Amino acid sequence: MRPGEDAYGQAMLDHLHGKDAWEIVERDDGFFMIGAGPDLYFAPFEEWREPEQKAMSHVRGRVLDIGCGAGRTALHLQGVGHEVVGIDNSPAAVETCRLRGVVDARVMSIDDIEPSLGTFDTVVMLGGNLGLLGNRKRGRRILTKLAGATSDDALILGASRDRTGSTDPDIVEYFSKNLTEGRLSGEGRIRIRYRKYVSEWFDFLRLTRDELRGLLDGTPWRLQQTIESDDTLYVAVLEKDR
Amino acid sequence: MRPGEDAYGQAMLDHLHGKDAWEIVERDDGFFMIGAGPDLYFAPFEEWREPEQKAMSHVRGRVLDIGCGAGRTALHLQGVGHEVVGIDNSPAAVETCRLRGVVDARVMSIDDIEPSLGTFDTVVMLGGNLGLLGNRKRGRRILTKLAGATSDDALILGASRDRTGSTDPDIVEYFSKNLTEGRLSGEGRIRIRYRKYVSEWFDFLRLTRDELRGLLDGTPWRLQQTIESDDTLYVAVLEKDR
Repeated sequence: MRPGEDAYGQAMLDHLHGKDAWEIVERDDGFFMIGAGPDLYFAPFEEWREPEQKAMSHVRGRVLDIGCGAGRTALHLQGVGHEVVGIDNSPAAVETCRLRGVVDARVMSIDDIEPSLGTFDTVVMLGGNLGLLGNRKRGRRILTKLAGATSDDALILGASRDRTGSTDPDIVEYFSKNLTEGRLSGEGRIRIRYRKYVSEWFDFLRLTRDELRGLLDGTPWRLQQTIESDDTLYVAVLEKDR
Repeated sequence: MRPGEDAYGQAMLDHLHGKDAWEIVERDDGFFMIGAGPDLYFAPFEEWREPEQKAMSHVRGRVLDIGCGAGRTALHLQGVGHEVVGIDNSPAAVETCRLRGVVDARVMSIDDIEPSLGTFDTVVMLGGNLGLLGNRKRGRRILTKLAGATSDDALILGASRDRTGSTDPDIVEYFSKNLTEGRLSGEGRIRIRYRKYVSEWFDFLRLTRDELRGLLDGTPWRLQQTIESDDTLYVAVLEKDR
């Protein structure tokens, strides 16, 4: 990643250093929105959404935090005694994690998870990071790899949003086009902008529960349960399909 | 303005109708930031910044509200008994004003102010709208026209921000480039984005107090006083130079 592409991480690092920071999300159809930004990414456990708080009670053993961002999940889990490895493809996000006290944060993409990281008992993908699975093909490849990096009774705790039933024309139109063209409804190509920083385009996925089940089909994982919220957010608990 | 260009107004109208809305500002050098958005544009008088509140004590007689937006200034001044004409080049903003109770809101650009509007005793340009003067040439043309549309003892109350002394590299660099190229330091070309709406590019000006004095030179107006804040915001009180 070139420094000018690290929009997400630079915003996190700037916020850490007391500078006004934000996150703008651009979708490839020209739709612009404001991202969650530092308010979410720096939130202490007490301020998390309830399904994400509840999900933490399922964490066991050694933890891989995929897309560790500014370190909110890693810091919480370290604090309650877990060994945590955080990975993020953003160098500035990883620097933010380290400065905030995350013991083991590494610049690594979800695509590059490798045996040298060791074996994990829990994989956490909060803050919508289940979306990093990207699409069917990529998702299955990553899930298969994660099976090899985890113990037999490992869990994946992944947050997503199910936008089924949205009446927002911008969402409905985008999702319909996806379905027409054979993709999962919530596949999207986005990039992050912050000041003059602009990330590369990347695929980000919103999964309905049914689509998640379909995606898991043929992988070593199955949906054990979902932890629900009062809106579109949910946390999926995946276990190995033995 | 084509409907797809009314980013600012559509955000205001959506907010009025209870839909999540925001404002993203894109500068022509690729700098992206989050605009003030509905929080500011719908703020009741009690929540305004202090210099803007104080400025209202200078209002007299018939008022022209340039860039009336979602109507916060017009509604306040109507409420205390002034006759107010609000103009904005955004049709959706003007619709928002009307729905909120602004008696006389018109779709009109600052460039098209015409005698048919009648004579005003006060011109208000809050929320940074002094920036609609754009640049030296445009500013002088508009100020001269405003002199013709106002009574002899009329005032212009215009808010701007003086970013002199900023250490933000993004601001310093942009301002330096302006000065090198003979423009006022705070001239900027921006456009507004909201969802898929994107406005046309337009010139928006941040004025230092000295630059404002220079800009007024040769126009029928002079700087009577500035109403200061504890940060970069100030409201200039302009009176006719008799």
